[in-house]
Amino acid sequence: MAILTQQEFDRRIAAAREAVRRNNLDAIMIFSTESEPAGVRYFSDYWPSFETTAVLVPAEGEAALLIGPESLTYASSRSKIARVIQLMDFRESSQPDYPGSKLPKWNDVVSEFKIKKLGICNWFLFPYAMMMDLAAAMGGMENIVPADDMIRPIFMKKSALEVECLRAAAKASEAGFKAILENIRPGMTESELCGIATAAMTAAGAEATGYPVWCCSGPNSDQAISRPTLRKVQCGEIIHFSIGAKVEGYSASIGRPVVLGTCPDEIRRFLQVGLDAANMTFDVMRAGVKSGDAATKVHDYIRAQGYGDAILYGPAHGCGQMECEYPFLETSSEYMLEADMTFMQDMFLHRNGMGFRWEDGLLVKAEGPAEMLSSYGRQINIL
Amino acid sequence: MAILTQQEFDRRIAAAREAVRRNNLDAIMIFSTESEPAGVRYFSDYWPSFETTAVLVPAEGEAALLIGPESLTYASSRSKIARVIQLMDFRESSQPDYPGSKLPKWNDVVSEFKIKKLGICNWFLFPYAMMMDLAAAMGGMENIVPADDMIRPIFMKKSALEVECLRAAAKASEAGFKAILENIRPGMTESELCGIATAAMTAAGAEATGYPVWCCSGPNSDQAISRPTLRKVQCGEIIHFSIGAKVEGYSASIGRPVVLGTCPDEIRRFLQVGLDAANMTFDVMRAGVKSGDAATKVHDYIRAQGYGDAILYGPAHGCGQMECEYPFLETSSEYMLEADMTFMQDMFLHRNGMGFRWEDGLLVKAEGPAEMLSSYGRQINIL
Repeated sequence: MAILTQQEFDRRIAAAREAVRRNNLDAIMIFSTESEPAGVRYFSDYWPSFETTAVLVPAEGEAALLIGPESLTYASSRSKIARVIQLMDFRESSQPDYPGSKLPKWNDVVSEFKIKKLGICNWFLFPYAMMMDLAAAMGGMENIVPADDMIRPIFMKKSALEVECLRAAAKASEAGFKAILENIRPGMTESELCGIATAAMTAAGAEATGYPVWCCSGPNSDQAISRPTLRKVQCGEIIHFSIGAKVEGYSASIGRPVVLGTCPDEIRRFLQVGLDAANMTFDVMRAGVKSGDAATKVHDYIRAQGYGDAILYGPAHGCGQMECEYPFLETSSEYMLEADMTFMQDMFLHRNGMGFRWEDGLLVKAEGPAEMLSSYGRQINIL
Repeated sequence: MAILTQQEFDRRIAAAREAVRRNNLDAIMIFSTESEPAGVRYFSDYWPSFETTAVLVPAEGEAALLIGPESLTYASSRSKIARVIQLMDFRESSQPDYPGSKLPKWNDVVSEFKIKKLGICNWFLFPYAMMMDLAAAMGGMENIVPADDMIRPIFMKKSALEVECLRAAAKASEAGFKAILENIRPGMTESELCGIATAAMTAAGAEATGYPVWCCSGPNSDQAISRPTLRKVQCGEIIHFSIGAKVEGYSASIGRPVVLGTCPDEIRRFLQVGLDAANMTFDVMRAGVKSGDAATKVHDYIRAQGYGDAILYGPAHGCGQMECEYPFLETSSEYMLEADMTFMQDMFLHRNGMGFRWEDGLLVKAEGPAEMLSSYGRQINIL
C-alpha cells in the first residue's frame, strides 16, 4: 500500500501553480537527473534513469512531465501527472539519434503552454546546452529566471505523509545496519558490506538505497563523502557506515562507526565526543530557534572538548527526497527553525587521518527537542 | 590487486594533452557527476558522490582534478592525478555556505593554467550556472568550445587493461544473475531481487552496481528503462532483469528474461526471436563493417519474423565506464566498426504491454564475429 496519494501530488502541483502566479511567471520548470531526482519526483513520482527529466507547471491548465525518448512506458506507469511529453533534449548522455522518431521541439512546448516568462528550478543542475535550446525557443535568456527560491518554501516543511515516508525509510535503513552488525567479519570488503546492507534494506521494503551508500575503514575513515572500496576491514580501526534506504522517493540515512576487537581509548573518547555533540543537536534544534544559533552551540561544544579542528561542516542538513537537500544547518545560517522541517543530524569529525559520522533523521517539533527518526545501534559499537 | 596502473592513467592524460594541442586549445576540462562519472573517472579514477567534479588537462604542465568542498580526503585517496583543487561551484546541490572556507575561484584557475581558449567535454551535462561563472573568468563564451568530438577517439577503442576490467565486471554481473536464479520465488518484490543481485555482485568483487539495476515484472516488463518497484513477481509472466556490476569504473550488464512456472507459447516465441536477433548481433558486428549496416541487418531480421513494431532502438550501444556510452549502434550510424571497440548488445523488444531485454557485453575482434563477454544463463529461463 503506497503512502503517498494522488491528492498529495495534486496539492503539490497546486502549490507550485500558486508560486508561478505569485511571481508573475507563465510557468515553472523543475529539472532533475538520475542522481538528483528531487523536484521531478516530488511533483510526479517519476524518477529517471539514464535520461533526464523535468516537470512543467503552467499558470493555467494541466502540468506536464517532460521525458526522453526511451522512458515512455516507464514514466507513464508511475507518473502522477497524466500528460507526458517526450523531447530529444532529455535523452541519454550517449546521444542516440533514434532514427525515425518524431518528437516535439521546445518551440512546440513553449507555444502550447503559452510561455513568455519561465522560471527554472534546480537551476544549478540545468545543462547549458539545454538552456541554449530553450532560450532560442523563448526568444532569449531574458525570459528565463532562476525559480528555486520560489519553490523551496513548498519543500521545506513536510506534510504528514512525507514524514510517514521518512519514518519508513529510517526503519528500512535500520534493517540495513542490523545486517551489518550481524554479518561483519574482519576480511570482508567495504563494498561487500554495502551490498549486504542494500539487500537487507530492499528485503525490508526499501525501493532502493537513498544514495550510493558507503563504508569507510581504517585510513579511509578520514573521508566525509566517499564510496566503498575493495579494502578489507580489520580489527582495532574505525569502520564507519553511511547506510540509507529510499521509500517512495524519500531518503534516510544512518551513520555509525563500528570497531572490531579492541577499541583504543583515544578512539573511544573521539567517538564519544561526536556522539554527545550529535545528541545535543536534537536538543538545540527547536522551533523558533535561529538555525545558525543551533549550529554554533553544537560546534562550540565540540571546540570546548578540544576537537574544534576536527569539524568539517554541519552539524545538520535538510533531508527529504534527497538525503542531503536545501537547507544546510551551518553557523552562518539565517533561517528560523519551524515545526515539520526535517533534517539529517550529521556529525562528521576527522583528525589525524581518522574520522567517523553519527547521523540520524531529525524532525523539528512544535515544542521541545527534535524527534530522532532512527536510533538502532546509536551507541559505540565495539564487536 | 588493481587492474589499472598509474601508467594507464598517464597514457590517457598524455592522449588528452595531444588533443588539446592538436585543436589549438590551452586546456580541455572534462565534467562529471555522481550518475555520469565517465570522463573524470577515466582520467583520474575519481568518482564523485553528492558533489560534481572535473579534470583539467592543459596544453603544458600537469593536469588537475577539480572537486567540491567536502571531498578532499576522498578524492586525494584515489585520484591518479596528484594535483587536486577545490572550488565552490562543485559543491552539493543543497548549496551549503561552508562558512570560513577559503577556496580558489575560476579566475585563479584560468590564470594559473594560462587558459585563453578552453574545450569542455560532457558538454551536454555541463551546468548553465557553472558555465556562466566560467565564462566570466574566461572573458566570454567565445573562448569556450565543445570538445567531446576531440576526446571521444581516445575512449572509443579500449586498451587491454580496459577490456580486462570489462571482463571482470561481466563475471561479477553473472554472479548477480546466478543469485537471482537460485533465490527467486513468486511473491518476492522487484526491489528485493535487485538487492539480492547487488549483494552477490559486491561479494564477487564488484565495487558497486554499474548503474541502478532493475527488475521488471508482468505489466512493468513493457519498460525499456526502469527502476525496480515493490511489485511482487508472479508465475506465468515475463520478469526481466538488467543486472550489472562495476569493476574499477567499468560497467557491465546482463539482460535476461525469466518466467516462473509455465511459459505460454506466444511468450516463448517472442523471447526466442529476441534471443536469435541478439545472437545475430554478435555475428554482424565485425571490424570493417559500417555500423548502420550491422544495425539494419538485425532489425531486418526482426521485421522478417513479424516483430518490427516491437523495436524501440538499438541493437547495441557503446559500453565502458558508462554502461551506455557513445556511440549508439543504430540504423542511422555512419562510423566503421573497429577491433577493440566495446558495446553492449542490447535487444529490447516490446509489444502489447509486454517486453524483455537480452543484453551482454560485446568486443569487436580484428577478425570474425564479436566476442561475447558474458553468457551465463543466456537461454530462455523457465523456472
